[in-house]
Amino acid sequence: MTAHSGTLTIDLAALRENYLKLKNIVGASCETAAVVKANAYGLGVQQMTPALWQAGARAFFVALLEEGIELRKTLPEARIAVLNGLIRGAEKEYAASNLIPVINTLTEIKAYQALAKELGKKLPAFLHIDTGMNRLGLEDHEIKEILQNPQATEGINILCIMSHFTSSEERESDSCARQYEAFSAVSMNFPGIPRSFCNSSGIFRDSTYHMDLVRPGMALYGLNPTPDQKNPMHPVIKLEAPVMQIRTAQKGDTCGYNETYRFNEEARLAVVSIGYADGLLRSLSNTGSLFWKGHALPIRGRISMDLTICDLSGVPENIGPLPGDHLEIIGPHQSADMVACAAKTIGYEILTSLGSRYARLYKNERTQEKKPA
Amino acid sequence: MTAHSGTLTIDLAALRENYLKLKNIVGASCETAAVVKANAYGLGVQQMTPALWQAGARAFFVALLEEGIELRKTLPEARIAVLNGLIRGAEKEYAASNLIPVINTLTEIKAYQALAKELGKKLPAFLHIDTGMNRLGLEDHEIKEILQNPQATEGINILCIMSHFTSSEERESDSCARQYEAFSAVSMNFPGIPRSFCNSSGIFRDSTYHMDLVRPGMALYGLNPTPDQKNPMHPVIKLEAPVMQIRTAQKGDTCGYNETYRFNEEARLAVVSIGYADGLLRSLSNTGSLFWKGHALPIRGRISMDLTICDLSGVPENIGPLPGDHLEIIGPHQSADMVACAAKTIGYEILTSLGSRYARLYKNERTQEKKPA
Repeated sequence: MTAHSGTLTIDLAALRENYLKLKNIVGASCETAAVVKANAYGLGVQQMTPALWQAGARAFFVALLEEGIELRKTLPEARIAVLNGLIRGAEKEYAASNLIPVINTLTEIKAYQALAKELGKKLPAFLHIDTGMNRLGLEDHEIKEILQNPQATEGINILCIMSHFTSSEERESDSCARQYEAFSAVSMNFPGIPRSFCNSSGIFRDSTYHMDLVRPGMALYGLNPTPDQKNPMHPVIKLEAPVMQIRTAQKGDTCGYNETYRFNEEARLAVVSIGYADGLLRSLSNTGSLFWKGHALPIRGRISMDLTICDLSGVPENIGPLPGDHLEIIGPHQSADMVACAAKTIGYEILTSLGSRYARLYKNERTQEKKPA
Repeated sequence: MTAHSGTLTIDLAALRENYLKLKNIVGASCETAAVVKANAYGLGVQQMTPALWQAGARAFFVALLEEGIELRKTLPEARIAVLNGLIRGAEKEYAASNLIPVINTLTEIKAYQALAKELGKKLPAFLHIDTGMNRLGLEDHEIKEILQNPQATEGINILCIMSHFTSSEERESDSCARQYEAFSAVSMNFPGIPRSFCNSSGIFRDSTYHMDLVRPGMALYGLNPTPDQKNPMHPVIKLEAPVMQIRTAQKGDTCGYNETYRFNEEARLAVVSIGYADGLLRSLSNTGSLFWKGHALPIRGRISMDLTICDLSGVPENIGPLPGDHLEIIGPHQSADMVACAAKTIGYEILTSLGSRYARLYKNERTQEKKPA
């Protein structure tokens, strides 16, 4: 159907290539897991995870218990770990769906031990050690308590101990080294247990950090894990939206809500069927651009809920666009990272904000370029 | 199930009361339509529109053809108008679902006439006159062409001519008066045809603007249409999310990604299972607050995709919260408009950004306060 909505094209072949690239970097002695929380960063967990499985991923990380239960339906054999921890009162749900809680507190350990006792078997867990995020993870005094008491983790099969970098994409920061040192000091006390530290950017920092399991997310989805260098990953998504109307603003006219942009001269405008309800963040008002045949079309005025106005004045009139033509929001001329930069945020938020009104096309072949209807 | 996700409670009784309040303001000679585009501003079109119908709404506005087709399934008898206009190549879809295009260009008029001719009957439309948004709507030269040619709208049953305010919530702006003047000049040429101008804030500006049909959206959903005054509307939503961990940051510690917040003294922190993937905009990092029993808990550090850290230091320790307790994000102590203000955006974007991971509870009775599980 010809439609008002934009089209989000997702390249599963690029996703698989990105997975294999990361796997190749860390080598065979380290497992490459896949972080697929938040609906695989907004791109569709039901479509993305079978492709990752096909590429060889066997361990997956979600944030929420609910996400783990859903993912289990798609991937019956995968190891699935739940980053936000063990929910009090829902311990049995983890066991029922064969999920691995990432345990963040002593209280969680105790609740999980009680379940293990009740079920009469050891239960699997990751242990999360905080090394500076001050977000989730065992604190120093909790780790001491565990180390002082041999029964502290009885009944729990610790598959891995892990921590999380705060600033692995910042080359100038010494935080990785500080966190690594803290983690090493703790992990010495868990001899023989696999260790995990790296997110996407961490993988590109130093092979010392790879350890036994890496947990990339953003790099799988084509965001740049090395922001100070050329993006080593393949782009995974393309986002386009149709022009509704081409119109002419007169000199002195304004456009959009609250008259925030005034034209110094006559301007040709394209009104495009995409707005902040679709995840084109309102902070891109008067600052972001859309693209047509490689020409940047600056956004004029405030982005509306369902519409965005952009300026065609820099484009030769004979090359279009015409109403019905699709403009590029994310694609060969503008990456999700570039959109994020204009919106003063990060590519992750651009992806997780992608709205539900788009037609979503999943491509399986890199060579086959499917044109949106 | 006890869960990691937050809970979004939506008060359908408040929605109905808001509708009736607006209907009462404009009086019996003016129809009160309901704008339900973008999934009823993110709140769930399948649940919100039957409640609005029950309150007496008979005319509904969506943005996209696809939204109109979906809404037709829920409301078989409603008048449904499609704001983003008539899509080239999909004209028959409007007729098939009995949708009313809001016609924005001469090209759309001609395409719609061709369909009317083919079907051998007059087809209904709204005509949108641009009066300063420079977004969608007929331009001056197009209106002249229509007025000069008696056949220009033949085959089309013009149900209403409409325009849209740019700044109706800004009391100091003279834009409403300017736009009203422009609209009046045009509408004189369409004698006997109903007229519509007002969005939510317009309804509160001046009864002159009410005309024959008003089109509120945000006020129905409890946002404040009179931002310089007390909100006259009932709050419709409540958003809460559970605490995962209570932890202590030491003096000199940082928290969250990129170490953007440093503690000058020891601080008790709550780590909450909500992040920007849930629509808690990342721009609230280090600036927004969550609430517990009326105490504001400032957000510390960067909001993550699935987690937010807030500061409990101002709360007496004996009143909690404990892990598992739900903190207020939107509710009696903090409106969606207040969240928007902290995020430097508007309440509309807070609503349309609400994520898909929440448990969504729809309440039908005002008195019955349902506690999330």
